[in-house]
Amino acid sequence: MSGTMSKPTLTVAMIGYQFMGMAHSNAYRQVGRYFDLPCEVRMKTLVGRREDRVRAAADRFGWEGYATDYRAAIDDPEVDIIDIGTPQDSHAEIGIAAAKAGKVVFCEKPMARNLAEAERFIEAVRASGRPSLIWHNYRRVPAIALAHQILQRGELGEIRHWRATYLQDWLVNPQAPRGWHLQKEIAGSGSLGDIGVHITDLAQHLIGPVARVTGFLKTITNERPLPGSGEMAPVDVDDVAMWLAEFANGVTGTFEATRFATGRKNYNRFEVNGSKGSLAFNLERFNELEVYFEDGPAETRGWRTIQATDGCHPFMSAYWPAGHVIGYEHTFINTLKDALTNLTLGQPISPSLEDGLQNQRVLDAVERSAASRTWIEVDSGPT
Amino acid sequence: MSGTMSKPTLTVAMIGYQFMGMAHSNAYRQVGRYFDLPCEVRMKTLVGRREDRVRAAADRFGWEGYATDYRAAIDDPEVDIIDIGTPQDSHAEIGIAAAKAGKVVFCEKPMARNLAEAERFIEAVRASGRPSLIWHNYRRVPAIALAHQILQRGELGEIRHWRATYLQDWLVNPQAPRGWHLQKEIAGSGSLGDIGVHITDLAQHLIGPVARVTGFLKTITNERPLPGSGEMAPVDVDDVAMWLAEFANGVTGTFEATRFATGRKNYNRFEVNGSKGSLAFNLERFNELEVYFEDGPAETRGWRTIQATDGCHPFMSAYWPAGHVIGYEHTFINTLKDALTNLTLGQPISPSLEDGLQNQRVLDAVERSAASRTWIEVDSGPT
Amino acid sequence: MSGTMSKPTLTVAMIGYQFMGMAHSNAYRQVGRYFDLPCEVRMKTLVGRREDRVRAAADRFGWEGYATDYRAAIDDPEVDIIDIGTPQDSHAEIGIAAAKAGKVVFCEKPMARNLAEAERFIEAVRASGRPSLIWHNYRRVPAIALAHQILQRGELGEIRHWRATYLQDWLVNPQAPRGWHLQKEIAGSGSLGDIGVHITDLAQHLIGPVARVTGFLKTITNERPLPGSGEMAPVDVDDVAMWLAEFANGVTGTFEATRFATGRKNYNRFEVNGSKGSLAFNLERFNELEVYFEDGPAETRGWRTIQATDGCHPFMSAYWPAGHVIGYEHTFINTLKDALTNLTLGQPISPSLEDGLQNQRVLDAVERSAASRTWIEVDSGPT
Amino acid sequence: MSGTMSKPTLTVAMIGYQFMGMAHSNAYRQVGRYFDLPCEVRMKTLVGRREDRVRAAADRFGWEGYATDYRAAIDDPEVDIIDIGTPQDSHAEIGIAAAKAGKVVFCEKPMARNLAEAERFIEAVRASGRPSLIWHNYRRVPAIALAHQILQRGELGEIRHWRATYLQDWLVNPQAPRGWHLQKEIAGSGSLGDIGVHITDLAQHLIGPVARVTGFLKTITNERPLPGSGEMAPVDVDDVAMWLAEFANGVTGTFEATRFATGRKNYNRFEVNGSKGSLAFNLERFNELEVYFEDGPAETRGWRTIQATDGCHPFMSAYWPAGHVIGYEHTFINTLKDALTNLTLGQPISPSLEDGLQNQRVLDAVERSAASRTWIEVDSGPT
Repeated sequence: MSGTMSKPTLTVAMIGYQFMGMAHSNAYRQVGRYFDLPCEVRMKTLVGRREDRVRAAADRFGWEGYATDYRAAIDDPEVDIIDIGTPQDSHAEIGIAAAKAGKVVFCEKPMARNLAEAERFIEAVRASGRPSLIWHNYRRVPAIALAHQILQRGELGEIRHWRATYLQDWLVNPQAPRGWHLQKEIAGSGSLGDIGVHITDLAQHLIGPVARVTGFLKTITNERPLPGSGEMAPVDVDDVAMWLAEFANGVTGTFEATRFATGRKNYNRFEVNGSKGSLAFNLERFNELEVYFEDGPAETRGWRTIQATDGCHPFMSAYWPAGHVIGYEHTFINTLKDALTNLTLGQPISPSLEDGLQNQRVLDAVERSAASRTWIEVDSGPT
Repeated sequence: MSGTMSKPTLTVAMIGYQFMGMAHSNAYRQVGRYFDLPCEVRMKTLVGRREDRVRAAADRFGWEGYATDYRAAIDDPEVDIIDIGTPQDSHAEIGIAAAKAGKVVFCEKPMARNLAEAERFIEAVRASGRPSLIWHNYRRVPAIALAHQILQRGELGEIRHWRATYLQDWLVNPQAPRGWHLQKEIAGSGSLGDIGVHITDLAQHLIGPVARVTGFLKTITNERPLPGSGEMAPVDVDDVAMWLAEFANGVTGTFEATRFATGRKNYNRFEVNGSKGSLAFNLERFNELEVYFEDGPAETRGWRTIQATDGCHPFMSAYWPAGHVIGYEHTFINTLKDALTNLTLGQPISPSLEDGLQNQRVLDAVERSAASRTWIEVDSGPT
Repeated sequence: MSGTMSKPTLTVAMIGYQFMGMAHSNAYRQVGRYFDLPCEVRMKTLVGRREDRVRAAADRFGWEGYATDYRAAIDDPEVDIIDIGTPQDSHAEIGIAAAKAGKVVFCEKPMARNLAEAERFIEAVRASGRPSLIWHNYRRVPAIALAHQILQRGELGEIRHWRATYLQDWLVNPQAPRGWHLQKEIAGSGSLGDIGVHITDLAQHLIGPVARVTGFLKTITNERPLPGSGEMAPVDVDDVAMWLAEFANGVTGTFEATRFATGRKNYNRFEVNGSKGSLAFNLERFNELEVYFEDGPAETRGWRTIQATDGCHPFMSAYWPAGHVIGYEHTFINTLKDALTNLTLGQPISPSLEDGLQNQRVLDAVERSAASRTWIEVDSGPT
Repeated sequence: MSGTMSKPTLTVAMIGYQFMGMAHSNAYRQVGRYFDLPCEVRMKTLVGRREDRVRAAADRFGWEGYATDYRAAIDDPEVDIIDIGTPQDSHAEIGIAAAKAGKVVFCEKPMARNLAEAERFIEAVRASGRPSLIWHNYRRVPAIALAHQILQRGELGEIRHWRATYLQDWLVNPQAPRGWHLQKEIAGSGSLGDIGVHITDLAQHLIGPVARVTGFLKTITNERPLPGSGEMAPVDVDDVAMWLAEFANGVTGTFEATRFATGRKNYNRFEVNGSKGSLAFNLERFNELEVYFEDGPAETRGWRTIQATDGCHPFMSAYWPAGHVIGYEHTFINTLKDALTNLTLGQPISPSLEDGLQNQRVLDAVERSAASRTWIEVDSGPT
């Protein structure tokens, strides 16, 4: 970390230039335009294996340069942060190498293909003594951050129920190609690790650790055409994942993740019921939080639709006047704002890869439960 | 009014057996099943001009007998209440005759085809010294009754705006027949008197008297096939009515009534904005009231959707547990419950034909404004 | 069954006069007012144990007479139908006695306190050779009947997912009394049999038989004040029931029933996802069905909100014009219309107590699964 | 316009650095990150009168340099585009100077304080022979662009009704300061020019030119504290504007603009009814378009909620996968993408200041109508 003038500069290398590479790059470019950071951000290197593509992406996304081997970025003494946005089969490999080189690791979700891999990863990060970030960007949707505040302040009383679904429909078409998301060797799992991990993270962030689960996994379409050739290839990951849960604090929960819910595009919806109130959120109505309070005169109680776009709502004072909505990309900007601020100030980053590990433990329990058809205790880590 | 045991009996004759005849009859049958009334209701006579049809309707709807001439009912000394559910060209004629015979008059909206006719009607009612009811049943949708309470208690502060639309789509099809609703001689007006009168009544009930208007009327489809023959016949009433208004208390208002709003089935929607809050209602979501209060912490303010189905909501303790909805027919039952109770107890009935007259004054002003293309003061009645 | 003129008369005795007694009585009174039935209905006897109350209820609800012992009704040779609306501890007892007397049995849900009792009940009904009805009235919400048609016509393609919640909040208050619903000896179970059975029935009606489940039951508030005395008494039924399911046809399902979902009054909501479309329903928005079709131009696809209030929708031609909503009580009227029509015509009634039994098998499997913490196969009945 | 490599570069100077300065600057920075433009954009100069503030803003927003006098930018031969984001009292002055210098003028809405000023402005632009842009950014909300396509393709049949409200609530608090928006000398008008102009533009864009209006303007709070001093100062602009309209093509319309609608934050909502369908939009649910089609089986017709976030929707292929929403700032990016592309290719820009003038004519007619209390024909321009 080198400083110019009063503000230190954090230098970043980003590994991966697809969907997440684009989203993270935008966040690095934009975060200082909206927020007053205690640091400068230098977008030094974008890494990808195909030179023509990574060069074009680096130019488009605003990186100073590019590399075709992530080791170049790790070996670069100027680089402070290695940000991993590749498919999950390389998360641990890159992350471990980066940690060993003493870099700060930022990593996309899911942390790894499976719990064992996540544990190797976290050991390296712990050994490095450096902070880390897992990109669970939805924690910083303003409406969800507001939900977190409401829960933290105890405004819903004793919490009883959590229910969450993450529904998409991009696999309904049987001709949707067999991309890497549908290969266990690369993705680790299907709906479970791709979107189920998001509702797992939100559940543990908002409610607390999941203690045990009974789960079910199923592959609906067993083979699909390969991109390009059109030749049929097997799908060996789950198309749907669903599980019941008990949290350590006694809350009961239901979870479902599927990419076969025709008409649902990004229906990451959850509801929390407490003794004094309830709240609900739907990512398709990103800027809204629904809240019910069991107070005031009975005849005017009702579910409120809060437009979480006002200056009083988390992160929103950086953007536009009330009612002028923000979108998906701002969740990455908001995440980065907190992560870079805390990194500069020497404070813990949240969510860290430790949180990623805790999510991975739940996914692992769901997989084991689906196999054994019994309830499985979530590994609570070393004691 | 004759009594048996401790409760007096109110004997009713109903004129008309179509849509409104069915709705009123149901209310007479059902009101005592849900509410404890201080009277008994006797459904004595149903009146209609076609004997075969009125006989069948009387049997179906639960009337003791029938007649083919309304004068028979008016001449019947046992009859206390003449309830008029015919097209509006006979409202005043029947109502005046009933009033002259000393009967209590219940009348469907609109009260008359035009203001002059309404004035003749009201004179007879006033001369009779008897109470009256105009069937503005929507005042007793529980959610609207709740809105009225909220406004009466001043919970929305100083009121600034009223906006109302009554949108339907049953005339979009150019082959929809030229029934009586589309003939000025029978109906008096089109969208204005048919559905515009409903939002006029709600406006004056909830906000207060309308002082002046600038209005616009238009016929979109100028001829339609006659029912039966299919021969084309002229439409001489308005298909759309819209007006701006100032209320006597300074509130500003917008109104629109049309039966050409494709996809809107019964979209009687209004919104009120006050200095401390707002409310909105949509008849298509009959059991809900939307309310916003400008109080409490800023970050949890939002429009609430109140399910006005709880025992604490107007009329609802008579029906089912919370969340078990009621429907259109119950507005007539609720109206009747209050009207019969007040009639028995010698208290004023609301809304009365005086309220109907006040609505008619607004419709008249809209018609004159549409003709003169200027603002028109609403006749405020004799002073 | 005796006939007057051309139409036979069906004579009914109703056992129970509380919530369900009121709802059923209303249906008997009203069904012939809205629908052309091939029979007359005679409301002969209302049965309840407390004479003062049952007498008043019989008068209020329109029954000719009353009795304080159900055996009087069963022994009455004029009575064709015994309609059981009591708490479930007497369903089987009364139903078996009625069946043995050759009566047609109509029975509220759940059919019995447990599967063994339901099996004894069904044996008597089968032995009687008479038709039966279980009052799963929600099948005849017009929007749900429309959903059934859409599914039957295959418009959603191959079905993949079912998810249902039945959420209420009347037990959130710890001072809510320990009524009979919270006693296992009377109710058999808690949220499972009270509301979970509704979503079980809808699931099996719309999707097909449930093959296996993994379930969870929990009591949140373990004691409550007795009504009247206020003395604390134990709650020995489940407050929340949740389960995952596989249907025999491979559809996956999630279910949750709770009366601790603050702010949810009658949130009986389900969603179905198929390869060509999806549908969703929420009982709090009774008159609406949400449907998504994966056809037509991609850019105008969206979830539709159908107002199932038009003459083209199931049952609605009997009521009011489009957009004039009906409510909870009409589900009983609609159920009765079909049941009495089929009974008169000698056609099967649906849903019958056989359907009730099939629901009971699912509830039993959920209970056993919750106890064993494994997946349990649903008993598929004698083969 | 100078070129480097194959792409020409367009050099911009932006006048104003507040809300609109921030929004436009973001668009210039981001447009090339999302879209493939046929040009490069050079953000050369940000202009503002207070040097410390404009310097900081230029740095924050990514401008190469700054100036404190707009004439410096106009005199700069490198500058191609003068983008005016100041209060409207300087629009015409700056715009005329820029046009005379041969610059391309981009200008915020409303174009001017009044019609006379707008006409002087347009004359200079016409004389320059250069294209222009008025920043009616809402035309390029993807959902609104989709609405435009649906209308252009005639999918709604013959259009009958337009109704629009633009509701905000930031003036409900009587202590909200008397800023420049509330001074006629600076703003020209109040709700009319601030937000009424947005629904005017959308109406004329989607439906066609407004032919005549009857309007009403009112100031609710006549004085407010000055920012800083707190001393009371007069408000001499309208707080609410409402008008009825006839379009040249016979469509009828209602319009209302107010900043006193408590609870409405940015409720720019419009609805269009045609003979074959309808559509509706609400800016608070930015990513959704509601559409109703009168086709297909009657029983499954309903209002659809289209998530206009798919690659098939206007502008969306540049952003994220379906269901990953965008927000307010992207409307400026989308507008700029089309404007810069067309400018480079020598094609007309839309909306241009000619469109701004046509909107101004409607506002002028509303003002004259409010004064004369009669219907006023909208000036149709030189013939």
